[in-house]
Amino acid sequence: MEPRILLAHGGGGGASHRLIQEVFYRYLGNDILLQGNDAAVFDVVPGKLAMTTDCFVVQPIFFRGGDIGKLAVCGTVNDLAVSGARPLYLSLGLIIEEGLPVELLEKVVASIAAACLEAGVKIVTGDTKVVEKGKADQLFINTTGLGIIPESVRVGGEMARPGDLVLINGNIGEHGLAVMSERAGINWETPILSDCAALHGLIAEAMEAGAVHCLRDPTRGGLATTLNEISRQSHVGIILEENAIPVSGAVRGASEMLGFDPLYLANEGKVVVIAPPASAKAILERMRRHPLGKDSAIIGEAVAEHPGLVALKTAFGGERLLDMLEGEMLPRIC
Amino acid sequence: MEPRILLAHGGGGGASHRLIQEVFYRYLGNDILLQGNDAAVFDVVPGKLAMTTDCFVVQPIFFRGGDIGKLAVCGTVNDLAVSGARPLYLSLGLIIEEGLPVELLEKVVASIAAACLEAGVKIVTGDTKVVEKGKADQLFINTTGLGIIPESVRVGGEMARPGDLVLINGNIGEHGLAVMSERAGINWETPILSDCAALHGLIAEAMEAGAVHCLRDPTRGGLATTLNEISRQSHVGIILEENAIPVSGAVRGASEMLGFDPLYLANEGKVVVIAPPASAKAILERMRRHPLGKDSAIIGEAVAEHPGLVALKTAFGGERLLDMLEGEMLPRIC
Repeated sequence: MEPRILLAHGGGGGASHRLIQEVFYRYLGNDILLQGNDAAVFDVVPGKLAMTTDCFVVQPIFFRGGDIGKLAVCGTVNDLAVSGARPLYLSLGLIIEEGLPVELLEKVVASIAAACLEAGVKIVTGDTKVVEKGKADQLFINTTGLGIIPESVRVGGEMARPGDLVLINGNIGEHGLAVMSERAGINWETPILSDCAALHGLIAEAMEAGAVHCLRDPTRGGLATTLNEISRQSHVGIILEENAIPVSGAVRGASEMLGFDPLYLANEGKVVVIAPPASAKAILERMRRHPLGKDSAIIGEAVAEHPGLVALKTAFGGERLLDMLEGEMLPRIC
Repeated sequence: MEPRILLAHGGGGGASHRLIQEVFYRYLGNDILLQGNDAAVFDVVPGKLAMTTDCFVVQPIFFRGGDIGKLAVCGTVNDLAVSGARPLYLSLGLIIEEGLPVELLEKVVASIAAACLEAGVKIVTGDTKVVEKGKADQLFINTTGLGIIPESVRVGGEMARPGDLVLINGNIGEHGLAVMSERAGINWETPILSDCAALHGLIAEAMEAGAVHCLRDPTRGGLATTLNEISRQSHVGIILEENAIPVSGAVRGASEMLGFDPLYLANEGKVVVIAPPASAKAILERMRRHPLGKDSAIIGEAVAEHPGLVALKTAFGGERLLDMLEGEMLPRIC
């Protein structure tokens, strides 16, 4: 292989074929991907399918706790998992800037392979385009995922009911701050790592433990934006207890110093679970036994009042409205 | 809506939601897309599914005969159709350069909507990311497609047999030259239009007319590269008759002037059909009755000799080997 990516690697000819064989097939090869036709072909059992797509433009492409490849797998796996689906297959589309060291690309592809193994999914089809130097920013990735939803499962952002409790599986704000700190070259005394992780296992356990109404991963826009979406879709109000929301000391300190609100910072390994009170306790206990849910907490409840709005009961006993994120706080964190 | 795309439109907050409502939902809305959850959920009948992904980085984004939006739909629909699948659902991922006029984006999305309608597919899930000015080139698109393969269908690049005939549905080289001419600002006396089209209908008719072994769309790398792929996958030789390959006078003239070989120029509305001799004639006749197949022709045959190699019988009675495209002839034509 050439040491750097050339336009020819996206040309569909000999160089493209070598890149496919020596990088993509080597790390990601599986029975379906290796069919080598224009589309991957596979059997599915009858039932409901979930399909989701995500583009990844994070910069820098490597950061504490993850990289663009791991993110591209976990992000799409999580979007399937919060739809109640068992993630199965991913497609992988890459847009590469000419001149990218092939070594860097290989590191990303190896990370994709490791994340797929962990999440139990396969890359079944892919595409690579190369654009001239200066026309992209190292590497952009699209993953599109397919999963199967068991007949018994029904979750959705429109299913929250007054009285339901709101749970989260741990500390918020880590991914956004980790990427932002990497980009700005800030080294915190206590390093802040991205929480980037595939949540399908944790979510499966939560759903086994009791009835769940909504699942959603609070990525771009953070916890506040995600809960606003759900409150609008379900026509309920949501009240959060500030004291109950898990935030690490490092994130709290860094946020204060930089003027960020952790409620609006992106997460890549968090899930909001909304469940009726009868099942919330059992779900909480089960989540806490999972490695990705040790710091799970009940952080609020859905109410009939102020439908479509999210309120925060502050540590000082006050209450303030939490709107959706408006504008862009931290660009390119995923 | 703001007149230009801001970073905030990719931030997942209020501006993103407005862009989704006022552009994407307005043009592309359908029952599945409007579910508004993290993944699209739909039922499928049991059977084989086909999944394929493609990134589109064509420049300029509008050209004679098409645009990046039409291309993104047709390209993925065609990859499904040549797998023997009935195209059903597409995902749509956009990476937008900050500052893109929203009007341009709307034109592209409207073109996507029109192409979906024509191809009988739905956009069921999407994602938008925005990167800073100078970090992308206007607009990149990923589409990932899902289709159903009827039980009776079995086609693939590995299924060509010696004696099979090679058909194509019309003039080659138009897409590559059309985009290249647009980019270079060349106005030919006879305009060269991209052949960009969804081929699912033509392909369905061809398969109804008789047994088909392989289907493939000769995009990047052109007809010569596509036939090389098939000859390797099927371990057969392929012999092409230069005289039989349809090339328009305009493409022939422009290619001679610029030093291109039409056999290596990209197509976006062509399909190679490889079929046993017993069915080839009936397939040819049926293809010729379809609007996208008027100039269909039998252009060669598969042979037991020189497996993995493609030979061209020239107009002058000579024979030369046609290798895969090596290097990159025309970057960013799709």
